[in-house]
Amino acid sequence: MRTRPLKVALLGCGVVGSEVARIMTTHADDLAARIGAPVELAGVAVRRPDRVREGIDPALVTTDATALVKRGDIDVVVEVIGGIEPARTLITTAMEHGASVVSANKALLAQDGPALHAVAAGQGRDLYYEAAVAGAIPLIRPLRESLAGDKVNRVLGIVNGTTNFILDAMDSTGAGYQEALDEATALGYAEADPTADVEGFDAAAKAAILAGIAFHTRVRLDDVHREGMTEVTAADFASAKEMGCTIKLLAICERAADGASVTARVHPAMIPLSHPLANVRGAYNAVFVEAEAAGQLMFYGPGAGGAPTASAVLGDLVAVCRNRLGGGRGPGESAYAALPVSPMGEVVTRYHISLDVADKPGVLAQVATVFAEHGVSIDTVRQSGKDGEASLVVVTHRASDAALGGTVEALRKLDTVRGVASIMRVEGE
Amino acid sequence: MRTRPLKVALLGCGVVGSEVARIMTTHADDLAARIGAPVELAGVAVRRPDRVREGIDPALVTTDATALVKRGDIDVVVEVIGGIEPARTLITTAMEHGASVVSANKALLAQDGPALHAVAAGQGRDLYYEAAVAGAIPLIRPLRESLAGDKVNRVLGIVNGTTNFILDAMDSTGAGYQEALDEATALGYAEADPTADVEGFDAAAKAAILAGIAFHTRVRLDDVHREGMTEVTAADFASAKEMGCTIKLLAICERAADGASVTARVHPAMIPLSHPLANVRGAYNAVFVEAEAAGQLMFYGPGAGGAPTASAVLGDLVAVCRNRLGGGRGPGESAYAALPVSPMGEVVTRYHISLDVADKPGVLAQVATVFAEHGVSIDTVRQSGKDGEASLVVVTHRASDAALGGTVEALRKLDTVRGVASIMRVEGE
Repeated sequence: MRTRPLKVALLGCGVVGSEVARIMTTHADDLAARIGAPVELAGVAVRRPDRVREGIDPALVTTDATALVKRGDIDVVVEVIGGIEPARTLITTAMEHGASVVSANKALLAQDGPALHAVAAGQGRDLYYEAAVAGAIPLIRPLRESLAGDKVNRVLGIVNGTTNFILDAMDSTGAGYQEALDEATALGYAEADPTADVEGFDAAAKAAILAGIAFHTRVRLDDVHREGMTEVTAADFASAKEMGCTIKLLAICERAADGASVTARVHPAMIPLSHPLANVRGAYNAVFVEAEAAGQLMFYGPGAGGAPTASAVLGDLVAVCRNRLGGGRGPGESAYAALPVSPMGEVVTRYHISLDVADKPGVLAQVATVFAEHGVSIDTVRQSGKDGEASLVVVTHRASDAALGGTVEALRKLDTVRGVASIMRVEGE
Repeated sequence: MRTRPLKVALLGCGVVGSEVARIMTTHADDLAARIGAPVELAGVAVRRPDRVREGIDPALVTTDATALVKRGDIDVVVEVIGGIEPARTLITTAMEHGASVVSANKALLAQDGPALHAVAAGQGRDLYYEAAVAGAIPLIRPLRESLAGDKVNRVLGIVNGTTNFILDAMDSTGAGYQEALDEATALGYAEADPTADVEGFDAAAKAAILAGIAFHTRVRLDDVHREGMTEVTAADFASAKEMGCTIKLLAICERAADGASVTARVHPAMIPLSHPLANVRGAYNAVFVEAEAAGQLMFYGPGAGGAPTASAVLGDLVAVCRNRLGGGRGPGESAYAALPVSPMGEVVTRYHISLDVADKPGVLAQVATVFAEHGVSIDTVRQSGKDGEASLVVVTHRASDAALGGTVEALRKLDTVRGVASIMRVEGE
């Protein structure tokens, strides 16, 4: 084994960074044996240097992250700051000054992945980011490497633990959205400002990263159709139960049937209770991958948290260190397929629509006519009513989002339709 | 991109090999783009050269596998023959003549992994074998690479599709073992001689490989405690149901609580219906991994079959080809921890024991005394009886296999115990 250590700079020492530093210290011998050389924490860049950080030599702590990544003797920079800046500039500077990079930064990778990969390729550095998607779950590496000889057609996953915790609570207790969110906040599963989670921004960033890797093409964050889950109601869960379903916030990346384009989207959807994703509880994440030869695979585990995310960071750290020693390089960006990303209107799926209608003869015929006129085939209709109020629940066969949108617009214009109570996609069948 | 192709020799062209060849042909452009150079099928060694192989140039087919691997211009040898010889000699010869190796051969890797890794290290070649365990499921790579910075404490999995198909059928239809085996055979899920599957040999080989990788130590096939599932009865499933459990054939690799030793075993066990492994149906495989930082992860997918296994082979092929081009090498054997493998007697788990006993007062007290004398703590007892016949079902707290064995031996000597109807371990709680 080489005795001269590989030097690691840590950018950020919060929940994840402190776990990375802790494991680097407590498991130093194991890491050295697995890498073939010791790894040394050579510097820790933080915003608040005065905070006591157990187990970290205060002499290593600095507020000058830029100077740290420019030192020139750093082998690997681990970036766990999050957000776009200063992370982007620091990562770029680090690679320009000789370091490879391990990042957990989904927002940055989703927005600037191609540019960062270009810097890595130009400088001959590694850029790894397993921790950016689904925490501890090995997902980026299986997609980039294990499935590198296969054709991935679909990635369908629960990639945000906060929203899964909330939806799971709503499902199991019958609580409404706000009540479940309050519980999640009290238990530390939701942040004080939960917008990034509940509006689907976090999941959309992960979807963009996953779609890009899965389909060997570039998928920009703006290419991802995004709907949050703040409007999911207890009534929606009741409807889902009647269908033998539950509701999950899903990130869905699909190759079109003709293979010539892809789509990526995040929205709440009903999935059958028999689907493995339906049983993903609490803050866990799970991702289904459908590939041509492999068939259906699922990856499941903790999607967030300090230690789980640190596990993914350290796996990347070991890989990057091995590459530094062995002279190899990990896979870079693979975007050769250059497939167009289709708009949401072209996405084809099934729908569950609840309508409030007048309780009189002929309504069902009117409604059915509208569906037929828009080319949306109905699978089942359930009609119930009393006291002049009635509801119609329509479940469709597969249809495009555009066709469904046109149908709903036309339904709203019918005198006999008093309102569209909810529209939810049905996935995983 | 490099235009000179990398040359691949295929040893074996059965169910898996023919899929590998097919995908190499039909997806040649994708593979070339992902690798950075075209890959060319340079030779196919088979036993029966006269069989028509669709899509394979007959000029490439040879019966002289040794000459093929000695050619010297082969970059990668893909071995999908299976069994110990001639695979072992061919793989060794291939590495000595300049090729890296991708193998799907669990029996060989379990028996001779260290020796083959030594050849690979000595010759500077890669030795990859993702397809040897759990078919298409990325498992070896996540354990070797993604979790390389973590400490794996437990691997618990369904790694044999045939036995899972049989047990799932027994569970869902109430069928007995023979009936379910016959169905599996008729449907092609079980081989004409199912011994390797139903007696747990196949799963034991996989357990040895997984334990070695997970714990960074050598685990020989002989170190794996093995019990088949031919004696599982419909009555066992009825008992499991009463416990809220089902029965699976599990491969279990564990680090002892003190971290100083490991165990590996294959046997049928009850697991709670709430455990994700309980819902693994048909011929699917799934593996739970518990790591110190990552927590609980699960990997799920098709555990066998031509295309799924080919997917894993091709992922390895792409990785090995990238290494050939880029000058790096994948991870070799990691056995630095050199942990002893403890015998089965030291394994600690829970037990479900059914006893046929005399239906008279004092029997329960006698039985409970025997458990207490052997230090096995009882969790629950259920007593039922009529017409002088009675049964006692005892579920224990955690105890060593040795203590349980001593308990059962003593129970058999009691006049009031007419027989031990079944003993089954309870896992996954």
